[in-house]
Amino acid sequence: MKIITPDNLDAFKRTVDGGTEEQRATVRTILSDVKKQKDQAVLSYTKQLDGADLSSLAVSEEEFQEARSQLDSEDIAILEEACANIRAFHLKQVRNSWFDTDEDGTILGQKITPLDAVGVYVPGGTAAYPSSVFMNVMPAIVAGVERIVMVSPPSEEGTLPAGVLVAAEIAGVKEIYKAGGAQAVAALAYGTESIQPVDKIVGPGNVYVALAKREVFGDVDIDMIAGPSEIVVLADDTARAEDIAADLLSQAEHDARSSSVLVTSSKTLADEVSLEVERQLATLPRKAIAEASVKDYGGIVVCDNLAQAIDAVNRLGPEHLEIQTEDPFMLLGKIKHAGAIFLGRFSSEPIGDYFAGPNHVLPTSGTARFSSPLNVDDFVKKSSVIYYSKTSYEKNADKIARFARLEGLEAHARAVETRKGSDES
Amino acid sequence: MKIITPDNLDAFKRTVDGGTEEQRATVRTILSDVKKQKDQAVLSYTKQLDGADLSSLAVSEEEFQEARSQLDSEDIAILEEACANIRAFHLKQVRNSWFDTDEDGTILGQKITPLDAVGVYVPGGTAAYPSSVFMNVMPAIVAGVERIVMVSPPSEEGTLPAGVLVAAEIAGVKEIYKAGGAQAVAALAYGTESIQPVDKIVGPGNVYVALAKREVFGDVDIDMIAGPSEIVVLADDTARAEDIAADLLSQAEHDARSSSVLVTSSKTLADEVSLEVERQLATLPRKAIAEASVKDYGGIVVCDNLAQAIDAVNRLGPEHLEIQTEDPFMLLGKIKHAGAIFLGRFSSEPIGDYFAGPNHVLPTSGTARFSSPLNVDDFVKKSSVIYYSKTSYEKNADKIARFARLEGLEAHARAVETRKGSDES
Repeated sequence: MKIITPDNLDAFKRTVDGGTEEQRATVRTILSDVKKQKDQAVLSYTKQLDGADLSSLAVSEEEFQEARSQLDSEDIAILEEACANIRAFHLKQVRNSWFDTDEDGTILGQKITPLDAVGVYVPGGTAAYPSSVFMNVMPAIVAGVERIVMVSPPSEEGTLPAGVLVAAEIAGVKEIYKAGGAQAVAALAYGTESIQPVDKIVGPGNVYVALAKREVFGDVDIDMIAGPSEIVVLADDTARAEDIAADLLSQAEHDARSSSVLVTSSKTLADEVSLEVERQLATLPRKAIAEASVKDYGGIVVCDNLAQAIDAVNRLGPEHLEIQTEDPFMLLGKIKHAGAIFLGRFSSEPIGDYFAGPNHVLPTSGTARFSSPLNVDDFVKKSSVIYYSKTSYEKNADKIARFARLEGLEAHARAVETRKGSDES
Repeated sequence: MKIITPDNLDAFKRTVDGGTEEQRATVRTILSDVKKQKDQAVLSYTKQLDGADLSSLAVSEEEFQEARSQLDSEDIAILEEACANIRAFHLKQVRNSWFDTDEDGTILGQKITPLDAVGVYVPGGTAAYPSSVFMNVMPAIVAGVERIVMVSPPSEEGTLPAGVLVAAEIAGVKEIYKAGGAQAVAALAYGTESIQPVDKIVGPGNVYVALAKREVFGDVDIDMIAGPSEIVVLADDTARAEDIAADLLSQAEHDARSSSVLVTSSKTLADEVSLEVERQLATLPRKAIAEASVKDYGGIVVCDNLAQAIDAVNRLGPEHLEIQTEDPFMLLGKIKHAGAIFLGRFSSEPIGDYFAGPNHVLPTSGTARFSSPLNVDDFVKKSSVIYYSKTSYEKNADKIARFARLEGLEAHARAVETRKGSDES
C-alpha cells in the first residue's frame, strides 16, 4: 500500500459521481415516459433493460413461499436475529411528540408524525443484499410508516433473489415490485396503475438510480446519494496488523472504487499492515476488485503522533472509522466527522454491516461533515404546535404588532390586533 | 374569494420554481468564476448586480455600532425578547448523545456532534427581515455550531439594513459579509480569501440563490428550497370571519404568489370571510400584492362536514395551519401534514412569525408531507458508536461470518474471523 504523510491527505478526497449529460438525458426520458404511460412504460423498460418479460410487477405470495423454501433454516435464524438487533437499536432513536406549558396558558410543542409511504430501492444482481433490506426498511418500520414498498430489478427469468424476499418478509414488507433503474424511481415518485406513489425514496442504486432520485427530489424526499464505501482505521502500535489488513480488505472487496485507509502514529505498524494486505489479498475470491481498490484508493497515512492522526481522521470524515488504539474510548470525544465509529480490537467493521444493530447506510465522500447514518428521524417529520391563550395574547399582542410594522408588514400587525377585545376561546 | 368544493383541491397544488435554462447557466458561470477568482469575482459581481463598489466584504465593528444607534430602544427590547423566546423553544429540541450497554460488554450508541460551520443567507432589500435572522441563526447557535457566518446583498451605498445587523448581534453573530446572490452561495461553499468555506448553507433567497444552493449541494449541505408562503385556516361556524380574513391577508401580503385558503364546514362562514377579505383589503398598504395573491392563489373550500375538511387539509399539507374550531385540540391528532399548527382564536399566525418561539422557516408547496420546520437537528449530525467486547465477539462471530458469506463477501467474513483466539482489549 502506498504510504503518505498527512500533508497529502487530499489524495483521498472524493466527490460523488454526477453522471454524464447523456445519462442525465436518458433518465429524464425514462421519467417522462413513466409519468405518461405508467405501468406500460415500466414493463417495457424492464423488458428492454433487465431482459425480463413480465405480465405483472408485484411479487406474489407464491414467490415469497418459494424464496423461503430456498433458504437454509440456520441462515434464516441468523437473518431474524440480525433484524431483531437492528430493530432494537432503532427503537432507541424513536422520539415522542412533546409540548411545554406556561402559566399564562401558552402551549408550545413539536408533533412527530411518521411519513405516510416510503419506497425502498434494492439494487439487483450480486449487490442484492438481505442486510441492505433490513437497514433501509427497519428505520421506517420503527418510525411507524404505514406503507413501505420495495422495488428491485428482476433477473432475466423475472425473479428476485430469495435472500432479498426472505429478508423483506422478516422485516415485515410484503408490497414488492419487480422493477429497477430510473423506471422504478419514477413509478415510486409519480405512481402507476399498480404502484401508488410514495413520499420518500431511499436505498442505493447505480448511477441511473442516483440521477433519477435527484430529478424527482422535491416531488418526493430522497435519502443521500451514496458514493463508494470507505474505511479509515486509526491505530497505534498496540494494534494487530493482521486485524487491520483484514478490515481494510473487507471494504476493498466491495467495489474497485472503495477506499481503505490506515492512519497511524506507528511506522512499524504501517509497514506490517502493508505486507499483511499483500499476503491476505492473495487468497481472496474477490481479489481483482480488492486489489484495484487498494491500489487506486487505499493508503497508509503515517503521522508524528496520535493528535496529528486524529486531525487527519477528522479531515477525511470517513464513512466507517475503526479506533484500534490502547484506549479507544479516550479518543471518542475527539472524533468530529465519521459515519460510524468502531471501538477496540473486537469491533471489526463487518459486525456493523450485518448484525450489531446500528445502520450500515452511512454518509460517504466526506459528507459525514454534515450527514448522519440513516435513522428513524429520516422517516418522520415534525410540526410545530402553537397555542396562545387570551392571557398570553393580551400580554404580547402589542409587541408582536410592533415587530410586524418594523418589518413593514401591516397586514401581519392587523391580524394580531383584530383579536383585541374578543372572548376567550 | 373563489369558493370551491374539495373535489377541486388540485387548483391549489404548487410546485417549487426550478428556474429557466438561462438562469441555470448564469448561476453555473457565477459559481465557476467565484471558485477560480474568489474575492475578486465576488466583489466584481457585487458591483455589477447590486451596484455596490466595495473595497472589503466584511461588516465592520463601526457598522454594527451605527446600526444599533439607528434603532429605537423599545424595538431593540422587543427583538431581544423574541430572540430569547426562539432560543428557549429550540433549547427543548436539543438531544444528547446516548449509549446503551449489554451485560456481555457490548456498547452501542449515537454520538451527536454540531456542524463545524454554517452559512446563513439573508435576502436583501425589503425582504431583509430581523425575524429571518433569528429563525435561521438560533437553531444553529443552540445546536452548538461554533462558526456561523451571515451573507446578505448590500444596498448601492454598500450597507446592510440596521435591523438585520442588530438582529445578528442580538443572536450572537458577528461574522457578516456584504455579498448576495449566487456569488455569496459560491463563496460560502468553496471559500475565498476573506470567507472560509462552511459545511451547510441555510436561508431563503431569490431564484438565483435557490439554483446556486441546488448546484453546491453535495459539496455542502443545504436546507430546503422555500416556495411562496401559504396558510390554510380550518374553521367551523364558531370562528370569527374578521379574524380569519385578517390572517389570510397576512400571508397574502408577503408575495403575489402566496396562497391563503380557508377550509370550512360552514357555508355561512365562507360567505362572511369572502366579504371580509374584500373589506380589509381596501385599506392595506400592500394591497396590490395581497389582492393578486388572493385572486390567483386564494380560495375557500366548503366541505360537507369537519371530517371532509380535515381530509382536505391533509391533502394540502400547508406551511401554516390555523385550527379555529370549537375544540381545536380535539383535531390535533388528525392533522398529518402541516409545517406549523396554530390552535384557537388567539393564535394568529403572525405570533409564530415573530415571537412565540417555534421556527418560521417551514416546509412549503406540500412538502410538509415529508419535511419539518428548521430545527436544531438540522445543525447536528449523528455518528453510530459500536463496541464489541471479547465476550460479545465470541458469541456472535460465527453468525456474522456466515451472514457475510451468504452475501458472497468472503473478506468480510475473514475480517470477523481473524480476531479468533486473540486477547481481550
